[in-house]
Amino acid sequence: MQNFIAYNPTKLHFGKDVIEGLPVSLPKYGKRILFVYGRGSIIRSGLYDSVKRLIGQAGMEVVEYGGIRPNPVVEDVDAAAGLGRKHNVDMILAVGGGSVIDSAKIIALTIPVNHSGWDFYSGKAKPAKAVPLITVLTLAATGTEMNRFAVLSNRAEGKKNGYGHVLCYPKESFLDPALTIPVPGDYTAYGIADLIAHCFELYFGAGDATLTDRIITSIVREAMEYGPQLLGNLTDYDLRARIMYAATMALNGLTSYGKVAGDWAVHGMGHVLSLHYDTPHGASLTIAYPAWLKFFREPMKERIAALGTELFREPLDAGGSILRIEGLFRQLGCPVRLSDIGVGHGEKDKLVKGFIINEVEGGNMKLTHEDYPKLIDLMM
Amino acid sequence: MQNFIAYNPTKLHFGKDVIEGLPVSLPKYGKRILFVYGRGSIIRSGLYDSVKRLIGQAGMEVVEYGGIRPNPVVEDVDAAAGLGRKHNVDMILAVGGGSVIDSAKIIALTIPVNHSGWDFYSGKAKPAKAVPLITVLTLAATGTEMNRFAVLSNRAEGKKNGYGHVLCYPKESFLDPALTIPVPGDYTAYGIADLIAHCFELYFGAGDATLTDRIITSIVREAMEYGPQLLGNLTDYDLRARIMYAATMALNGLTSYGKVAGDWAVHGMGHVLSLHYDTPHGASLTIAYPAWLKFFREPMKERIAALGTELFREPLDAGGSILRIEGLFRQLGCPVRLSDIGVGHGEKDKLVKGFIINEVEGGNMKLTHEDYPKLIDLMM
Repeated sequence: MQNFIAYNPTKLHFGKDVIEGLPVSLPKYGKRILFVYGRGSIIRSGLYDSVKRLIGQAGMEVVEYGGIRPNPVVEDVDAAAGLGRKHNVDMILAVGGGSVIDSAKIIALTIPVNHSGWDFYSGKAKPAKAVPLITVLTLAATGTEMNRFAVLSNRAEGKKNGYGHVLCYPKESFLDPALTIPVPGDYTAYGIADLIAHCFELYFGAGDATLTDRIITSIVREAMEYGPQLLGNLTDYDLRARIMYAATMALNGLTSYGKVAGDWAVHGMGHVLSLHYDTPHGASLTIAYPAWLKFFREPMKERIAALGTELFREPLDAGGSILRIEGLFRQLGCPVRLSDIGVGHGEKDKLVKGFIINEVEGGNMKLTHEDYPKLIDLMM
Repeated sequence: MQNFIAYNPTKLHFGKDVIEGLPVSLPKYGKRILFVYGRGSIIRSGLYDSVKRLIGQAGMEVVEYGGIRPNPVVEDVDAAAGLGRKHNVDMILAVGGGSVIDSAKIIALTIPVNHSGWDFYSGKAKPAKAVPLITVLTLAATGTEMNRFAVLSNRAEGKKNGYGHVLCYPKESFLDPALTIPVPGDYTAYGIADLIAHCFELYFGAGDATLTDRIITSIVREAMEYGPQLLGNLTDYDLRARIMYAATMALNGLTSYGKVAGDWAVHGMGHVLSLHYDTPHGASLTIAYPAWLKFFREPMKERIAALGTELFREPLDAGGSILRIEGLFRQLGCPVRLSDIGVGHGEKDKLVKGFIINEVEGGNMKLTHEDYPKLIDLMM
């Protein structure tokens, strides 16, 4: 086992109607809120009105930044940070999915400074403080509600990268599974795939932490059991709850304790697909994972076989495990090949270039530029 | 799933030589330390000297309270709190096992007030603030290093009870598995039994949280795999690390998410055994658990069978599961009957009275006073 620090200061409120606690929590952090959200789904669902009512109940002042895009971009972050700075806000309330909350984390770092949020990604700047962030989650997927990571795109530079800092933890996050009921089947499936992929990234990371591996496979098995049930019954609160809880646990630190780090090459490749084709994050991962597993089948054969055997509870070798994992993604209705999203051989050079620009390397199983064409072939 | 709050502010430093970080952490909380420890084992191991060196390196002032007793008593807590109050300490550094750290938690609550620490247990007083607590753990067992619970005895009243408050979380805890290497085989086994019992208390608590159940059985399986190995090889750092990590995870909140609460009747009964016979905590639990399982075998038959089947990975009914669990405790060298610790039928009335005084009720499967003699018979 590796030395590690277990520390997660986020207070997570989970369950039915937990957002009714917002008027108690919000005033702890000041008076003026920057309310950040996406492109209308919370207005359609009525959540926008509920949140405005709760902010009113708390007697807070509010300035709004709506319209955060999926696969979030630095332009939104910088504009929202400018608005927050101008209005001297005390806190951010982010209501939405991973894109909104990831954006809000970088907005929180950018408000106190005089430069673009991208400077944290490029390494030009290091954060010294952050505006407190409270989140209300509407999509079970990325785990951002209880971690220190944020993914952002810079289309001008052709980059979509992840960033993590201890100042990025939300102070409090409110997770009502009922708020995820409006999510349609395809995005529900991508969320399930995303949480499974997070587990895999940590499982295939370097380091020997058997309990963490057991917890990882527990989370995947939960998703395997209840994910398909949920896709057949999207309005079931209890199934929504099981998946939402699993998604949080997949990437809140727990799945990394005692390991060196995750691998994350698949996320790197997936980000490039999202950048070029606006592929939903979870769908990009179900295309990249089977290819990555096939590429590293020989050197990782014991690890892959052990994973499949534990997940499916029957003796499987590496090849059999890969087939079953790909089958699981298919069962969720997710794409597993580039052709499934209409991307053909003609895109290969563009993808190779994207992998190079985004420095897709992997933390445990190292990738070189020479490996990229082979990986893309395996995705075809 | 039940609504729940996931919140654990303790910063846990885990791994080899992590205590070398004390000079960085301690000064964050002030200048004057109350250094609390037990009855000499840290002096014999050399840890006392190391900690004194690190406190010196940090340039802190220190006042010491040594001699905290196992199965800790309120007299030590009140005396140490008085010392801390007199010297106006800024923080507590607790170095030891569960008894020392549990005592330190109540000392931290008692220093700012003018009454006995027992008043928090009796409900006479509610804490308003606590002196910051930093811990260095020397025994893998209770999970106290990362939770808000503390168990204390009041021998004058014939009580040994648990208490929990959000102010009881240690600010930081330092866990170097190497510091547990001096723990002898029997106490190592009791620690393993304790962590398993914590998992069981939560598993048999009310509420339906399948992922939490999976995590619970993952922790028990880790203990089942590495516990016996460790008992055959007490100086192995890596085995010490796996057990220490498992013990922390068994009771840091994780095993309760989405459940109503744990059951804890077995802990209640175990505390009475410890109170009367100074039975080590873990050993009291391995006597009480088989009896409790047999007592509730019929109403809990599906739950018990599912637990055994998952732990031992073969189809087991409730009776078979109980036998295997008892066998596991025996394999660890722990007592499973009162006769194993020299307690005979003559003690029955005393134990019944102890259960009554300590209000042993259970959180999920309710016990009445009429049940106590039957439970004690099952322990014989």
